[in-house]
This record gives sequence, structure tokens and C-alpha cells, in this order.
Amino acid sequence: MPDERTELSPTGWGPAESAHDLPSAGRKWLHREIGWTPRDTPAEALAAVTTAATRLSDSSSSALIEIVGEDQVRTDGPSRLRRGAGRSYLDLIRRRSGDVSGLPDAVVLPGSHDEVLAVLSRCVEDDIAVVPFGGGTSVVGGLGGDGGEHRAVVALDVARLNAIDSIDAKSLLVTAGAGLRGPEFEARMARYGLTLGHFPQSYEYATLGGYAATRSVGQASTGYGRFDELVSGVRLATPVGSWQVGRAPASAAGPDLLGLVLGSEGVLGVITELTLRVRPAPETKHYEGWSFRSLPRALEGLRQLARAELLPDIARLSDPDETRANIVLAASSKANALQTLLRARGHGAGCLLIVGWEGDTDSVGVRRRAASSLLRRCEAVRIGRSVGQSWLSSRYSGPYLRDALLDVGLLVETLETAASWSDLAEVYQATREALITSLSTADKKPLVMCHVSHVYPTGASLYFTVLADRDDDRPLQQWLLAKRAATDALLSAGGVLTHHHAVGIDHAPWLSREIGDLGVAVLHAVKDRLDPTGICNPCVLFGRP
Amino acid sequence: MPDERTELSPTGWGPAESAHDLPSAGRKWLHREIGWTPRDTPAEALAAVTTAATRLSDSSSSALIEIVGEDQVRTDGPSRLRRGAGRSYLDLIRRRSGDVSGLPDAVVLPGSHDEVLAVLSRCVEDDIAVVPFGGGTSVVGGLGGDGGEHRAVVALDVARLNAIDSIDAKSLLVTAGAGLRGPEFEARMARYGLTLGHFPQSYEYATLGGYAATRSVGQASTGYGRFDELVSGVRLATPVGSWQVGRAPASAAGPDLLGLVLGSEGVLGVITELTLRVRPAPETKHYEGWSFRSLPRALEGLRQLARAELLPDIARLSDPDETRANIVLAASSKANALQTLLRARGHGAGCLLIVGWEGDTDSVGVRRRAASSLLRRCEAVRIGRSVGQSWLSSRYSGPYLRDALLDVGLLVETLETAASWSDLAEVYQATREALITSLSTADKKPLVMCHVSHVYPTGASLYFTVLADRDDDRPLQQWLLAKRAATDALLSAGGVLTHHHAVGIDHAPWLSREIGDLGVAVLHAVKDRLDPTGICNPCVLFGRP
Repeated sequence: MPDERTELSPTGWGPAESAHDLPSAGRKWLHREIGWTPRDTPAEALAAVTTAATRLSDSSSSALIEIVGEDQVRTDGPSRLRRGAGRSYLDLIRRRSGDVSGLPDAVVLPGSHDEVLAVLSRCVEDDIAVVPFGGGTSVVGGLGGDGGEHRAVVALDVARLNAIDSIDAKSLLVTAGAGLRGPEFEARMARYGLTLGHFPQSYEYATLGGYAATRSVGQASTGYGRFDELVSGVRLATPVGSWQVGRAPASAAGPDLLGLVLGSEGVLGVITELTLRVRPAPETKHYEGWSFRSLPRALEGLRQLARAELLPDIARLSDPDETRANIVLAASSKANALQTLLRARGHGAGCLLIVGWEGDTDSVGVRRRAASSLLRRCEAVRIGRSVGQSWLSSRYSGPYLRDALLDVGLLVETLETAASWSDLAEVYQATREALITSLSTADKKPLVMCHVSHVYPTGASLYFTVLADRDDDRPLQQWLLAKRAATDALLSAGGVLTHHHAVGIDHAPWLSREIGDLGVAVLHAVKDRLDPTGICNPCVLFGRP
Repeated sequence: MPDERTELSPTGWGPAESAHDLPSAGRKWLHREIGWTPRDTPAEALAAVTTAATRLSDSSSSALIEIVGEDQVRTDGPSRLRRGAGRSYLDLIRRRSGDVSGLPDAVVLPGSHDEVLAVLSRCVEDDIAVVPFGGGTSVVGGLGGDGGEHRAVVALDVARLNAIDSIDAKSLLVTAGAGLRGPEFEARMARYGLTLGHFPQSYEYATLGGYAATRSVGQASTGYGRFDELVSGVRLATPVGSWQVGRAPASAAGPDLLGLVLGSEGVLGVITELTLRVRPAPETKHYEGWSFRSLPRALEGLRQLARAELLPDIARLSDPDETRANIVLAASSKANALQTLLRARGHGAGCLLIVGWEGDTDSVGVRRRAASSLLRRCEAVRIGRSVGQSWLSSRYSGPYLRDALLDVGLLVETLETAASWSDLAEVYQATREALITSLSTADKKPLVMCHVSHVYPTGASLYFTVLADRDDDRPLQQWLLAKRAATDALLSAGGVLTHHHAVGIDHAPWLSREIGDLGVAVLHAVKDRLDPTGICNPCVLFGRP
């Protein structure tokens, strides 16, 4: 894990030295599978590229400096570049080609809630759009945008809002600044024997505020709950004032307004502080692997676990293609041995399930035994702990590996959805087929892998990873067509628009299909009330105005 | 349990024949405790009272009949009286004194979602307020109101929206009409081996739509979840059209709009249909009683259970006064024996805890053993199953007993809140003291009892029941002053305005204190968008316009 304030690279995920390599066995296999030939496609060196001049006027700049201090208003190229986009495939392909458009005119780093309020006020006055910036890990264009029709745009970086204001260990409630990152927060909680239990793949970089603004879901959310379930209150700075929303433990005083702020992606204002539900840190963690003969059997196994209220805290089921790719790409003697074992059991084209149990030792034992017995009745085979440990140790490594794949001419992107158990198989098939069809050519086809990473009594999530030979002439168009086909397909089959990546710019065209025209109208009404001049993250959620 | 379409009496809860009597030992004890002398204070016979003429114009009436049919528009006195108020102490005292003000001008019973839409359209055109009516069990004035400044007001009774449209047993999702009552719904579910698990005290009368509109909480909600957690989608008919809100199993596509409809108390439109999360019906139900020496120890015991994730499905803890009153009012040899036992254990002024476990037999056994062991470490004493069974058999009887108490000169009312574990003791004390102070006179004092009925990791609910000698000259004023004092006190101490009774008219004055001025402004913006002429339940939530 990088140290706490390590920043993402503008053209990839981690700092260059942490880039992972694709093993040569994997290269050969991918060549055979998808018709891709490794080639050097390095990122442009952005240091050499000139960024557009800032549109921030001197008077606006002085006014903002007056509020936050000289050092906290930055208009230099690198500062703006670092906050200018998220880390979707589209973002990275643009930046890697030397395209540095869409940068904020300045970065502003307020040091308190009141400073955020003052910044918003000034931006209303000067017609400057404000894009909240947390960790920069959005993969749906959540940070993009040139400010729409406003005179300029600033990135409001919440990094300095990083205090822990109160720890109520008795009520398991902690109030903390929106700019805290997961590792910093967990380290502070560990001193009190507590944990939040929120571990998305973006964990090393993403902030608490970003989790809340996007309804993040973590790898352990089956057990610990989605991030929206971990928030009991937020403090929102809006252009029309301060709003403290949410009361613990529960209230029946009218509609739930906290849920309106969670997932609001910056369009209603800036989340500056959150009150979070924490838990006692687990005494025991037990991870292990299981195998199913086929995907339908595996999904039925997960459904039975959910129905019996025996779900583990982590449940991550790979489809046959992802299972196979993981074994091949691991390229180790252990992985080969595993493959031999699975073949011998008739699971040669099977599905790997990683389960994780966390909690006090007794209860982990009891839950695990009951679930194991049910898994066996569903004809699953236990593979053992090393597979689980191996997943655990590489749980944040995917995006680093992506950097390496982007360097050698691959298209690599993910998309996700969720559906009820009744619709899940059809959503899986329809999405997969749409991706395969749209990314296939006469002699090439993509590798479409999928896993379930979050399980509910009523259904589950589906997370697709796509690898294909990149169309070097039209890489953006290549993915946009595939994404459009897949999204249309998954919505038609009954999937949700997004289970945990949020809307951003990328999903905005489908929002009314997801929440209805009246839903969009209601959100507009709320936005108009809190942000009458429309300066708050104007390009996301509803799409470019 | 009355049969499915038995109706509440306009002056009380159940039909007259089901009224319960106060045992004579209880009468004597109450006389000593609170200085009350039994006297006959029967309800006026409303049949003899003339209701105000309907303000519904002939043209409106014809138009509504055109939509829903001749039999489904009712302007007779009894029909209007039956939907004219909820069942709070204030409602009942008014009706019992012969006050039949605030009646709707007509009752309309649409038979479909489209009919509801058409009724709303016509009411917009004719400036008629619409108050949705489910079971009539509101205790916060949720059905009250004369329509504000509109020309007339109709009660829109959802009773005919009572179909079960789909049962997806695989995904545990059921879509049903808003007018279904709990017993009807559970009976239908039982045929499929399913249950909703929602059992509020109003269970015999309340409707699914009412549960959703008020964020109902049931007696088993610690295990099964609050009603808002059981809803995965609703269909809302609004003056500007239809809105289908909510997608299973989960979505990160922007703010949560379902939570905006849940708890909306009819101000945004009429909930006509719900998709609910059901569960396999439990194989085993095990209820039993435990005793704690004191309230602080008992609260700590519940907190420890929550922290260890060992909460039972039902947890109902009575404070010392409620424990004592239950034993005395039961007036049975069993109750006397229990009291002797508790005294012998040093629990003479202790707290009774009812716990209930539901589920498959193995899991109930495992959970119960682990929780029992923790309860013993918290110095609780197990009393056995008969106390639990006795609670179970009388779980819906409280409001029937209230009818009997109202007949003999008592003030009897409840109020509720919730608070974090850190604030809970102070909220308890402050509320109790406010009630005692405001209801005491030179020679009389109230009996203030309290129980915890819903437990969360972060806190718990508090439910107060008050008995006092009624001020026969100013009964309404007597309670209004006490309610105001108690509400101010509980809010100041950190409690929520209401944990499960909703806002209605009664809590409206405190809404901005609970959700902030911006919260109220946001709700107004949403209402203005969906109900531009303000015809939807105009007197609740925000208060009389």
C-alpha cells in the first residue's frame, strides 16, 4: 500500500514504480484468446504538454485566496492535471494520448466547513463551477467537465478536511472529515479497536466524502453493508447554506433526506463531514476458496446462502472465464496445481468462489460451519485457505495491472450492475453477449470476465472486466460503442444502471431510464433549491446542461 | 383478531364488544399511584350527532363517480366519520365528546392505480384536497385536516387496491396493493411459506401503504427490519403523473429517491403499490422473559447484544414502572408468583425484557445460546417462556384496553423517540421528568412507563406510555402541554422527533428542528414539483398551510 497521501498518476493508477507486469505466459494466452499482439503503447509524457491558461480572473483568485490562504489556491499545470479527471479507461486513454483538456482552472483546498461555504458563495457570485475532488478514483467521469456554461471551474479538493471530530465508542458513531482516506481512517479506528469495514478497490486513494457522494460498495460490503448503510449523518455545504442531515439511530420524521445527499455526486453541494457507523474490529478473519462446477450452480449456492441468512462477509464469485483467466495470469506452480485439482473434480470450466468471515472467533466458527455445510449441499468443493489469502493480498492490485496492460496495446475496462435473482442469469448473458458482439472483429474477440461481489437476499451484483485488442485509431469510440450496447442490454434485461460506480458523466444518458422522468424532475427540483445558479458539479448525473 | 375488514370505531380502537376491562386490583393500584378516582366518562353516541353537509359540488361528485363508479363515492355521515381522523388520544377525546369536525366531504375508493391518477387530476381541477386513507390508525393526526384552504377535501381510501400482483419467490420480492392489511398479506404469504415479518401494534387494521407512508416499525423489526427496509419499490400516483421508484437489489444511480417517498405521509401523492422483501416463514419461534436488576444494567445488556451482533428478532425492555404496572395490571396468580420470584432475586424494582427468536430451528438455537450467555454475563436472570408467550398473546391488545381506560376518566397516551446509546439515558430521564412535571398537580401525579422496543448497534427506541387523571374540563389542553414539554425535552437531550409514529399534524411544529430549515425547504421543493397546487394531504408534515 502506498503511503497515505501518495497520489494517483494522471495517466494511470499508482505511481510508476508500482506498475505490475503481465507475466509472459499470460501474454501468450491472451494472444491466443483475443487475437492481441503485444506492442508498445506508452503514455505521453505529460510534463511536456502545455495546459490551457486558467480562466480564473484575478479578482476571483484574490477572493478565493482571501478565504483559504495563498497556498491553497493552485493554478499550476500539475495541480490542475492531478484533479482534472477520474481513472476510467476513457479518462486514461485521453490523458495517455497527451489530451489534457477539461482541466479545472484552479484547485482550491479549503480547511474547514465554513471555508467551503465561503468558497461556494464566492463561486456563485463569480459564476464559477465547483467540482468536489476527493481521491480522484471515479471511473464514470464523476470529476470531468469543463464547468458547462459557467465562466470558469474550480476543483474543490477536500484533502484538508481530514480531522476526526468525535469518536463515540459507546454508540459506535464516529464523525470525521470528508477528505480522510480509508487507510488513514482505519488506522485511527484501530487504536480504539474499531473498524469501518469499507474496502473498495479504490481504498488506497478514495476519501470518505467520495464514498458517500457515489454510494460506494466495498469488497466486504456483503457483511459490513454498503457505504450508504454505514453513514448516519452528513454535513453538506451548499450554495444556499449549511445542512446537517441524518439522525442516529433512526427516525420516522418524514422522508429520508440523508439518502438524497448520499449519491448526489457533488450536484447539491460539498459533503464536508460524515458521521459513520463503525464496528468492533474483528478478532478473526478467515478467507477461503470454494469451487462450483458451473455458474448456474454457483449462483444458486449464493442465493441459498442469502436465503438462509448464512452469507459470509465477503463473497466473490468468478464466472468460468474469470476463474480461468485468474489461474492462467497467476502463472505460478500453485495455480497450475489448483487447475489440475479442479479438472480432476470435473470443475475444469468451473467457478471460483472466495468467501471471507470476520468477527469474533466463536461466531466466525459457527457461521462458517453452517455455511460450509450448505455449500456442500449445493455441490461446492472447498479448495482451502491459500486461494483466499492470495485474493486478499492482491485485492487492490487490479488497477495497477491495468496500467501495464494499457502500455501494451490492450483495451481494459470494467462495468457493473445488479439484478434480482430471477433476472440475474439473463442480465449476465445479455451484457456478456453485447460486449462480445460489439468488440469482436473478423479475427479478434474480447475476453469478457465477470464476478459477483455483493450478495443480497433479493439478488446480486455483476462486475464485468473486458480485455480486447485496442483499436489504436479509434480507442474511445471502440469502448463507447461497447459500453452503450452493454448498458442498453443490461437495462433491458432488468439490471440496474450501476450498482456501485455511480452515474458521473458516463451513465447520465440513461438516468431517466433508471429513475423515471419524474425522478429526474424531482432531483432537478432539489438541485434548483440548493444550487439555484447550477454551479455544483454541473456536468455529472444529469449530463452536460 | 377481528376479521379482515373489521373497522375501527370512530371513538376508539376495536368494535365495542372487544373492549377490555381494567381489573379491580388495577383500579385500586392506579387510584393509589396517580390519585385517580374511577368515574363514568362514556363516549357520546355519534349516531345522534349531525355531521356537516358535504362541500363537494355536484359536478365534482359526478366527475368522481364517472371515474370510480357510483358506489365508490360516499358522502354519508358514517362513511366520512370513519375516515375523518386517526386514533390518537386527542382524536379520541374530540370524537368521544361529540365533536365531529374535520370530516372529509366525501370518501372516494378507487379500484386501480389509474383511477387514483384520474381522481387526483380531477381534484387538481376542482381544487379539492386529497387525504389518503389506509387503516385509520395514525396516532399523530396523519389523517386530520379540513383540507386547508382548498374548496373541499376527500378521503382517498385505498381499500380496493388490495391485489397481490406478483410473487417472485426466488428473489423474495412480492408486489402488492397499498390497501392490503397485514393479516391478509401474511395469510397470502403463508401459502408460499413466506412472511413479511411486520407486526406493529396496529397490525390488525393498518395497510401496507400506510406502513410505507409513515415509516412504520413493528414489534419484530429488530430482526426483520423497519418497514422502510422491507420496501424495494413503490408506485406513486401524483398530481403530475405516475412514478415507479426503487430498484432491487440495490443501485448507485444517484440519490435514493425511494427513501423520499417512504415517510412522505401522502404529501407527494398516493402510494398505490409496493414491492416488498419477504422472507421464508420461520420454522421456530421462541419467546422468553429475562429480568435485570436496574434500567442502566438492562440498557447496557441490550447494547452489548447489539455490539456482538447477537440481537434477538424481538427485544422489548420495560423500565421499572412499566414492569411493575404490567405485573399489577395482569392481576393473576402467575403475575404474583413472578413478582415474588423477582423480589427474591433482588429484582423487585427491576426491568423485564421480552426476547423473541425466529428462524430455522438450528439457527435459533445457536443464536439464543450465544445471546443467553451474554445476557447472563450482564447479570440478567432468565424468567422463562410463559412471560414471553403471555406478551405474544396480548401484543395487539393495548389499544383495546385504552378504550376501557378512556371510559373511566383516565388520560392515556403514548409518545416515542430514539437516541444513540450515549444519549439514551438522558433522553429517557428528560422525557420522563417533563411528562411527570407537566401532568402533576398538588395531589396527583401521572404514571409514566417506558419500554425499548427496537434496538440498533448505534442506539435504541424509547416508547413512553402515560396514565393520569384526566382534566375533564380541559382534556386536550392537558395533554397538549405535556406533549409539548416532553417533545422539547427529548429533542434537547438528543432524541429524534419520532422513531415510528411519523409527523402528521401533531409533530409538524418541530419538523424544522429535526431536519433543519434547508431540509424543510428541500421537501417543499419536492412537493411543489409533484403537487404544484398543494392538494395532497395539505395539513400534515409541514403543518397547516
